[in-house]
Amino acid sequence: MRVGIQNKPLQTVGWETGKVRLIDQTALPEKLQYLDFSDWREVAEAIRTMIVRGAPAIGCAAALGIALGSRGIIASGREAFLGRVTGIADTFRAARPTAVNLFWAIDRMIAVAENTPGNPVDMKDALLTEALKMLDEDIAANKRLGDFGAELLPDAVNILTHCNAGALATVGYGTALGVVRSAVEMGKNVHVYADETRPRLQGMKLTAWELARDDIPVTVIADNMAGSLMRQGKVDCVIVGADRIASNGDAANKIGTYTVAVLAKHHGIPFYVAAPLSTIDQSLISGAQIPIEQRESIEMTHIEGIRVAPEGVAVINPAFDVTPAELITGIITESGVLRAPYEEAILEALGVARGATGMGARSMSIAGR
Amino acid sequence: MRVGIQNKPLQTVGWETGKVRLIDQTALPEKLQYLDFSDWREVAEAIRTMIVRGAPAIGCAAALGIALGSRGIIASGREAFLGRVTGIADTFRAARPTAVNLFWAIDRMIAVAENTPGNPVDMKDALLTEALKMLDEDIAANKRLGDFGAELLPDAVNILTHCNAGALATVGYGTALGVVRSAVEMGKNVHVYADETRPRLQGMKLTAWELARDDIPVTVIADNMAGSLMRQGKVDCVIVGADRIASNGDAANKIGTYTVAVLAKHHGIPFYVAAPLSTIDQSLISGAQIPIEQRESIEMTHIEGIRVAPEGVAVINPAFDVTPAELITGIITESGVLRAPYEEAILEALGVARGATGMGARSMSIAGR
Repeated sequence: MRVGIQNKPLQTVGWETGKVRLIDQTALPEKLQYLDFSDWREVAEAIRTMIVRGAPAIGCAAALGIALGSRGIIASGREAFLGRVTGIADTFRAARPTAVNLFWAIDRMIAVAENTPGNPVDMKDALLTEALKMLDEDIAANKRLGDFGAELLPDAVNILTHCNAGALATVGYGTALGVVRSAVEMGKNVHVYADETRPRLQGMKLTAWELARDDIPVTVIADNMAGSLMRQGKVDCVIVGADRIASNGDAANKIGTYTVAVLAKHHGIPFYVAAPLSTIDQSLISGAQIPIEQRESIEMTHIEGIRVAPEGVAVINPAFDVTPAELITGIITESGVLRAPYEEAILEALGVARGATGMGARSMSIAGR
Repeated sequence: MRVGIQNKPLQTVGWETGKVRLIDQTALPEKLQYLDFSDWREVAEAIRTMIVRGAPAIGCAAALGIALGSRGIIASGREAFLGRVTGIADTFRAARPTAVNLFWAIDRMIAVAENTPGNPVDMKDALLTEALKMLDEDIAANKRLGDFGAELLPDAVNILTHCNAGALATVGYGTALGVVRSAVEMGKNVHVYADETRPRLQGMKLTAWELARDDIPVTVIADNMAGSLMRQGKVDCVIVGADRIASNGDAANKIGTYTVAVLAKHHGIPFYVAAPLSTIDQSLISGAQIPIEQRESIEMTHIEGIRVAPEGVAVINPAFDVTPAELITGIITESGVLRAPYEEAILEALGVARGATGMGARSMSIAGR
C-alpha cells in the first residue's frame, strides 16, 4: 500500500478509446481496478451505486456519460438529437439528489449541445470536447484551491477530515485532500486524521488508502473519537469537502460533517470547507432547502455483506447533513478563500470566475433540483 | 427478535450449580447463549475479551469469579488461603483498567475474606454469599436509579444513548436503559436512538437487541448522525452509563460519549449519566487521572473478521473518553440525581449510602488503580 510517491497520480474519471473509465471505488482498498463503460446507462448506474462518488467526480462522470450516450444517438435532425440528449441527461439527473455538481455538469452539457451550430455530428464532437474540458478544469481548480488552502495552514499541522474529498472524489488531486497535497508540496509537515465515516467507511477505505499511497501520514479513527482527540489538543484544523453549498454558505456534506463542525466550534478549531465554485447552488437561500438523500438500510445493517444489526430493528441512513455557515471558518475555492458574510463573498467569487473564464451566465446559473 | 414483554428479564451474570454463568455478548445479536465457567481463570479472560462487558457487570463477574476461584483453594490456614485469594483477585484486577466497579468489587471481596472469622471453609462460604449479594444489590440499585431517572423525563421522549448501559452491562435491568425501562413502566412514551458505537458496535448489537426484545421502540444510528438529529430537534435528552466517575463528577464512558456530550451542550439538550455509586472513584480528583484502556487495532481494522482498513494504515483505539462534569446535567444514582457542584453532591450521596446500608468505610473507599 505504501508504495511511495513514484505512484502515478490517480485519475478517478477518464475517457479511454471511446469508453468512460472509472476507478471502481467499491473495490478499494483491496484492489485498484478500472472499469470501462461503453453503455451510458451503466455510467448512470455506477453513480447511483457509488462505484464513482464524490460531488466533483460524479459531475464529470455524468458529463462523460452524456458524451458517450450522445455518440450512440442515430438522429438526422438537431431537434431530435437534442431531445434524445435531454432524455439521457434526465437519467443522470435522477442518479443522486444532493451533490449539485451533477446538475451543474448536466446543465453545462445541455447548454453546449444547444449552442453548438451544425448537425448532430458536430454536436457530438462538442459534447465530448466539453466533457474532457471539465475533467481538465476539475484538476486545475483543485490545484488552485489546494494552494489557497495550504497557505492557511501552519508548517506542522494535524488535519482532521471526514469521508473522502480526495482524488477519488474528483477527477484527481482532490479538494480537502488537494489542500493536504498542496501543503505537502509546500514542504509542510502534515498528518491527517481520517474519520472512518460510517456507514460506507469512505474515510477508512478511500481517504486512508489514497493518502498512504502518496506517503502522506494518516491515522484512521472511528467517527466518535474526533471529540476526544480535539479535547486532547491533537487536531489543529478540520478540512472537509462539500456536495452542495447554498447562497448563504450553508454546506451539505457527508453525514457526520455537522457533528465535526460543532466539535470544532466547541474547541476553537478552524473548520474549512474545500470545494470548487461548481458546488455552489445560488438558487438556494439556505441549506434548509438542500435535498438530503436517504439511502438503503442495508448500508447500516450490514457491513461487508454481513448483518450486524438485530433483525427487525429500525435504522436511519441519511447520506448527508448540512453545516450552517456560522460554523464554517472559510470556504476554500479555486478563486480564493471565501469568508463570512458568505452571501457577498460567494456573489463576488462567482462574478470574478465568470469574468475570468468567459463563461456565460447560463453555465453559472445552477438550478436547484 | 421483537418477541414481546413475555420474555424473561435478562440475567447477564449469574451463579448456576457451582459455576459462573455469563451471557456471551460476543454472540449477540445472532444468538442468546449462556456460558458456564468452572475455572476462574476463564472468567477473568471473559472479562478481558469482552464476553462480559459493562462496568457493573464486570464487577459482579469478578466477584463471582473470585468466589469460584476460592472454592478450588486447598489451604489449611487462613493466611495461606488469603494469600491465594489475593492472587486470584490480582488476575481479575489486570483484566481491564478503566471501569472502577471491577476494583470496587474486588476490594469488597478481599475485605469480606479478611473480616470473616473462622477457617477457609467459612471464608469460602462468605465470599460466595457476598458475591451473590452484590448481584442482588446491582439489580435493586438499577431499579432505584431507573425510577429516579424516569421522573426527570417528559411523558413523550426521544432518548439518545451511546454504547450499551443496559441489562447486558449490569446483572440485569441496566443503568441508562434502566431509566428507559422505568419510564416505560411508568407509562411514558419512550423512543430510543441508539448510537451504533464503533468499533465494537455495542449500541447496534446489544442496546438495540435488548430494547427490541422488550418491545421498546429503538432506532439505530451511525455515531456520526447524532448531531444532525439534534439539530432537527429529534433528541430530547441523552442518557449514558459510566465506567468511572471522579470526585469532581468527570465521567469516563465508552469512546464517543464526550462527542455526544458536546453536541448536547451545543443544542441545549440535557445530558445525564446513569450509574450506581460504585462507579464513583473518590481517590481521583478529576477525570484527567482516569486510566484509558487502549485496545487492539484489529477492533478498528476488521469488522466481523473482515479487513476494512487498508494494509499498513495506522489506527487508534482508545476504549473510553472522559466527559467533564460541566457538560453533565445530572448523575442519576440509586441515591437520587446528583447535580453540580458534584464534589459536594457525591460526598453527600456516599455518606447517605454508607449510613443507609451500614457498609463500613472500607467497602466505600475505592482505591484508584
